[in-house]
Amino acid sequence: MSANAPATGAPELIVVMRASATAEEVQHVVSLIEEAGAGVHVDEGGEGTVIGAIGDRAIVAGLPLEAVAGVERVVPLRKEYKRVSREFRSRDTVVRIGTAEVGGGRFAMMAGPCSIESHEQTLAAAEAVKAAGGAVLRGGAYKPRTSPYAFQGLGVEGLRILRAVGDEVGLPVTTELMDARDLADVVEHVDMIWIGARNMQNFNLLSEVGRSGKPVMLKRGMSATVEELLMAAEYVAKGGCDDVILCERGIRTFEKATRFTLDVSAIPVLKAETHLPVIVDPSHAAGKRSLVLPLALAAVAAGADGLIVETHPTPEHALSDAAQQIPAAEFGAFVQDVERLVQVSGRTPSR
Amino acid sequence: MSANAPATGAPELIVVMRASATAEEVQHVVSLIEEAGAGVHVDEGGEGTVIGAIGDRAIVAGLPLEAVAGVERVVPLRKEYKRVSREFRSRDTVVRIGTAEVGGGRFAMMAGPCSIESHEQTLAAAEAVKAAGGAVLRGGAYKPRTSPYAFQGLGVEGLRILRAVGDEVGLPVTTELMDARDLADVVEHVDMIWIGARNMQNFNLLSEVGRSGKPVMLKRGMSATVEELLMAAEYVAKGGCDDVILCERGIRTFEKATRFTLDVSAIPVLKAETHLPVIVDPSHAAGKRSLVLPLALAAVAAGADGLIVETHPTPEHALSDAAQQIPAAEFGAFVQDVERLVQVSGRTPSR
Amino acid sequence: MSANAPATGAPELIVVMRASATAEEVQHVVSLIEEAGAGVHVDEGGEGTVIGAIGDRAIVAGLPLEAVAGVERVVPLRKEYKRVSREFRSRDTVVRIGTAEVGGGRFAMMAGPCSIESHEQTLAAAEAVKAAGGAVLRGGAYKPRTSPYAFQGLGVEGLRILRAVGDEVGLPVTTELMDARDLADVVEHVDMIWIGARNMQNFNLLSEVGRSGKPVMLKRGMSATVEELLMAAEYVAKGGCDDVILCERGIRTFEKATRFTLDVSAIPVLKAETHLPVIVDPSHAAGKRSLVLPLALAAVAAGADGLIVETHPTPEHALSDAAQQIPAAEFGAFVQDVERLVQVSGRTPSR
Amino acid sequence: MSANAPATGAPELIVVMRASATAEEVQHVVSLIEEAGAGVHVDEGGEGTVIGAIGDRAIVAGLPLEAVAGVERVVPLRKEYKRVSREFRSRDTVVRIGTAEVGGGRFAMMAGPCSIESHEQTLAAAEAVKAAGGAVLRGGAYKPRTSPYAFQGLGVEGLRILRAVGDEVGLPVTTELMDARDLADVVEHVDMIWIGARNMQNFNLLSEVGRSGKPVMLKRGMSATVEELLMAAEYVAKGGCDDVILCERGIRTFEKATRFTLDVSAIPVLKAETHLPVIVDPSHAAGKRSLVLPLALAAVAAGADGLIVETHPTPEHALSDAAQQIPAAEFGAFVQDVERLVQVSGRTPSR
Repeated sequence: MSANAPATGAPELIVVMRASATAEEVQHVVSLIEEAGAGVHVDEGGEGTVIGAIGDRAIVAGLPLEAVAGVERVVPLRKEYKRVSREFRSRDTVVRIGTAEVGGGRFAMMAGPCSIESHEQTLAAAEAVKAAGGAVLRGGAYKPRTSPYAFQGLGVEGLRILRAVGDEVGLPVTTELMDARDLADVVEHVDMIWIGARNMQNFNLLSEVGRSGKPVMLKRGMSATVEELLMAAEYVAKGGCDDVILCERGIRTFEKATRFTLDVSAIPVLKAETHLPVIVDPSHAAGKRSLVLPLALAAVAAGADGLIVETHPTPEHALSDAAQQIPAAEFGAFVQDVERLVQVSGRTPSR
Repeated sequence: MSANAPATGAPELIVVMRASATAEEVQHVVSLIEEAGAGVHVDEGGEGTVIGAIGDRAIVAGLPLEAVAGVERVVPLRKEYKRVSREFRSRDTVVRIGTAEVGGGRFAMMAGPCSIESHEQTLAAAEAVKAAGGAVLRGGAYKPRTSPYAFQGLGVEGLRILRAVGDEVGLPVTTELMDARDLADVVEHVDMIWIGARNMQNFNLLSEVGRSGKPVMLKRGMSATVEELLMAAEYVAKGGCDDVILCERGIRTFEKATRFTLDVSAIPVLKAETHLPVIVDPSHAAGKRSLVLPLALAAVAAGADGLIVETHPTPEHALSDAAQQIPAAEFGAFVQDVERLVQVSGRTPSR
Repeated sequence: MSANAPATGAPELIVVMRASATAEEVQHVVSLIEEAGAGVHVDEGGEGTVIGAIGDRAIVAGLPLEAVAGVERVVPLRKEYKRVSREFRSRDTVVRIGTAEVGGGRFAMMAGPCSIESHEQTLAAAEAVKAAGGAVLRGGAYKPRTSPYAFQGLGVEGLRILRAVGDEVGLPVTTELMDARDLADVVEHVDMIWIGARNMQNFNLLSEVGRSGKPVMLKRGMSATVEELLMAAEYVAKGGCDDVILCERGIRTFEKATRFTLDVSAIPVLKAETHLPVIVDPSHAAGKRSLVLPLALAAVAAGADGLIVETHPTPEHALSDAAQQIPAAEFGAFVQDVERLVQVSGRTPSR
Repeated sequence: MSANAPATGAPELIVVMRASATAEEVQHVVSLIEEAGAGVHVDEGGEGTVIGAIGDRAIVAGLPLEAVAGVERVVPLRKEYKRVSREFRSRDTVVRIGTAEVGGGRFAMMAGPCSIESHEQTLAAAEAVKAAGGAVLRGGAYKPRTSPYAFQGLGVEGLRILRAVGDEVGLPVTTELMDARDLADVVEHVDMIWIGARNMQNFNLLSEVGRSGKPVMLKRGMSATVEELLMAAEYVAKGGCDDVILCERGIRTFEKATRFTLDVSAIPVLKAETHLPVIVDPSHAAGKRSLVLPLALAAVAAGADGLIVETHPTPEHALSDAAQQIPAAEFGAFVQDVERLVQVSGRTPSR
């Protein structure tokens, strides 16, 4: 049907034509693929012709074939991400955050308050994290709040407190970056940058943190698919950063008994698809303190390489996410329960 | 505002009136509540009056207040289920299925083929289940199939095979009941009836199995909330059956990397709300064999009282759900991995 | 690669092998397809071989290829439904319910109370429906209720009232069938059987109503895809019934501002995929009276062939779904607004 | 129970205590509310005490009561948004974009290419929009693309083309702002700024565009609730901007027959909750050209104040979203169909 000889090789993409498609419509699809420099394989059938496009994925995937008359559907056969895929690197990536290690059998407990409220509050949380054997101190300096009338974070002052407290207790630190204009400040003060769920598809920000030289922890958007999370990680990786940690934190579903639905299946799915470490945030998924431990244990059992958990000296007085923070006084027991499971699963806690 | 003195006691239900509601509209709501025999507490406020209704839950919940002019919203404060709630019975219910026990620290592995295809195939699967230490043999005689052109199950002949094989290897047996007309046959042949996800809100069927005298395992509908699952269990319990097992098997979400999204959080949420045992079906949630073990482990870590898993002597030749059944030859290793976690979690496998 | 010459024709299904799949694994997939009597086309590629299976859809679709080692994914290229598809019949099916017609340019307003509560209440609603120009009288005799403590319907007595009132005012009647054991009673009393959302995948029931000789209205399950709705209709059609009406009634999503999310896009998608009429139930989707009219208008604008709406003489005293029923006194104005749009859209109201 | 006299007035928030809560736990909740300066009303009941908190919403809403022992749940009775609510302003806001008007009975058709690719392509689309009677020209200069390997937009050069073409054909122009660093450039070149779905909760960006002096069109995030959309609009309004247009563009659900599920119910829900105009983007919701017209008509019928639609001179050669753009040559017919419905609905198209 094509003027050229049929191309050989495995197709990147299949175009299914309607049974009612005309020969001209089929030929038009073939021409569009060939003009783009890709090969074509045409199979005619009673219920409609099937066309395979063979060639460079980025070119073939970009063809607007769904808009063409007579086309029923277009089925890409391969994933669009490359650098983050298991095919690109079969061995587990181990990400180093200061002294801590995540991935490849090393399990990291990251913990700290939701928001940095003061030096005293941050220090109290950090001491509990350190004493319990935590690996990284977390704390929010810039807070994404649904309400414009809620506490918005301490900004640069929060970064300074975080750094100072991290140095004082001996823990590497991480904070969320929400705005590219804060990148230099954040890079100056922390050991790992984290990108929150609401920014998972802020592609400019992804590209820039990918060029920052810091490890990046990327949280899954509340309605992002596993594939979209991997594409977002590809943006960071394309910027030059190989040290990306993926974080499952719950997706939005119809179920309102929990704030979000922790997608525990995403852990083994991601571990199969990518060489990057996968951690879990049980605090935000649960939205409720009593659920944090069972979800943390489920995550470890399913293969997570780490956890990021909220703890606060006095959750009742926390300025944000009070309901889900573990009291610092109970944090040691929490870590013990988690680490027992880490060890049964044949992994080693990172300190 | 009410002719009567304001009622005392905690409200069952709150009616929030619009700021623009008139005094007549407020009075009309008050009258409707009082006519139903319930008490009323009225608080007037600048942004709209708030009315509390105090009295019998079933009566108050049934009032059609959302249809009344001036009403902004109606907020029930209490759950509608009773017999299945922790308030009704604080101690864990232990369900006995023949020799097996589920709940209250006893963990049961239920396993077997998706469909009963023949005596030989069922026996091969059952011997693997027994050898591995499984507690209950499962097998489908009636199959709900999305396509009318797919295998629909062996029916009563399947029930006979299941019973015979169960007796042969020494395992209690369970099968799915889809149609109330098959109830007598199913009751005659099995030790526990299971109600599938598609029938979770088939309320006639729920009432009837509740009166059958058999233990019942109730699977969560793919788009049912935790609260709806508990209401469905209430239907069974109201029929007289105290031996109900709840089963989480994945909910439908936007994520298509897995067939369903296992809602692992539902396990601790349910364990807090109800005294009934909670088990998990990782096979249907995953839809893919390689995910069954990580999801099974996550379920155990989150507190599940048991698992129901598909295993088949030769999954490649299975007549249904081929992709997710564990080969019988690998089933022993699967159970070992699961039971190690059960024991670490301080529970005892039931045999 | 196959022992036979490569098959020709368009594939029904594509098997994408992993890049790491061995030649034996590829050959094993080829053998499984060939053993089933289907043809095979193999394309080798650097990122993994792609195998096309050519032959009878039902056979090819039933092959358990996802369970086979080395397989990355299996992509069916064609839909599984046949009799209900546009390919099977390109002309719109017009369904006759007594004197009413739905489809092919004929628009039917079906209306009546949620539940049949008494002869008087049903008659008052029916007179409003008739006066407004409605085409079919609806009313529930068997009610699926989430709570076992709520009103469950009048049963056969309700059917008798419905039939008597329909004859009295001159309207064909329809009711929901929930249990196959009630089929004979329902067939005796109504002009059309409707299957509710909770039973959309009660495959036994679908097959039986398909053989009953009555037109069937099939409501989409709250979490059923468009494709699953069409497969359910295929069950009915396979039973011998050509007079199937599909009904969109809202799907379950994360949004709780409405009871369900009316999937208005499903109307044009269904109209393209099937020759069957498509109607909409705006009452259940909205869950709130003030939303029923805008959703009804949206449905008409998007191409719906009819509506099914709840109306009650005194919604405040309704025994079920009080919040969403239109007062009978306002029903005439409602129908006028809808019919103006029906006429602008070039369709004719059926009486 | 409280030391003070019981407060009077309607509660902002209800705290439902567990039946098992102790008197000390109840007292602790009361103290926390009183310490914050709010009033308390306590109702004791057999199934658990119910506590009402009366006072300033922002203070009461911020109390971390869910973290407190003995609390079963916390139910806010009122919405958190103010300036955007119907209570704040009952009359419809009419937003002016250059010469165009949206809201309060004025309907605006906004259209143009997905991406600005060249002066020639933009001009061809703009001429079709102008000729058809469109009110605003849209075009993307910065493109959020899921894949880092896809076309990312022309940036400032695109803004210049858009402005020049708008002036040439006589249409006000709008473009999407993704990064606060581009704000000055965007403000310089366009008549209205639009914030895309992925940035709906980029709170910094919302605050800054709210202070920019330009009208703002805010698209609903793909998994944002109606309430979250209104809270996002509140951020913009709090910055000082009264000219905010809300845009429904489809939400993410389990249904994959369309790219997103257009939530048509959101239109009447929003129109009741807010005085702001509500428009609809049928192109992105559908993801498929043949669905754009039916969804556009549904939106108009449900009460939308405008549409934003993609049109391209040659969709097959578009650099983004090819499948959903209406060919410019067909755009006149599209607008005619839409405007017929606008007029039937008693509104006036803005030019």
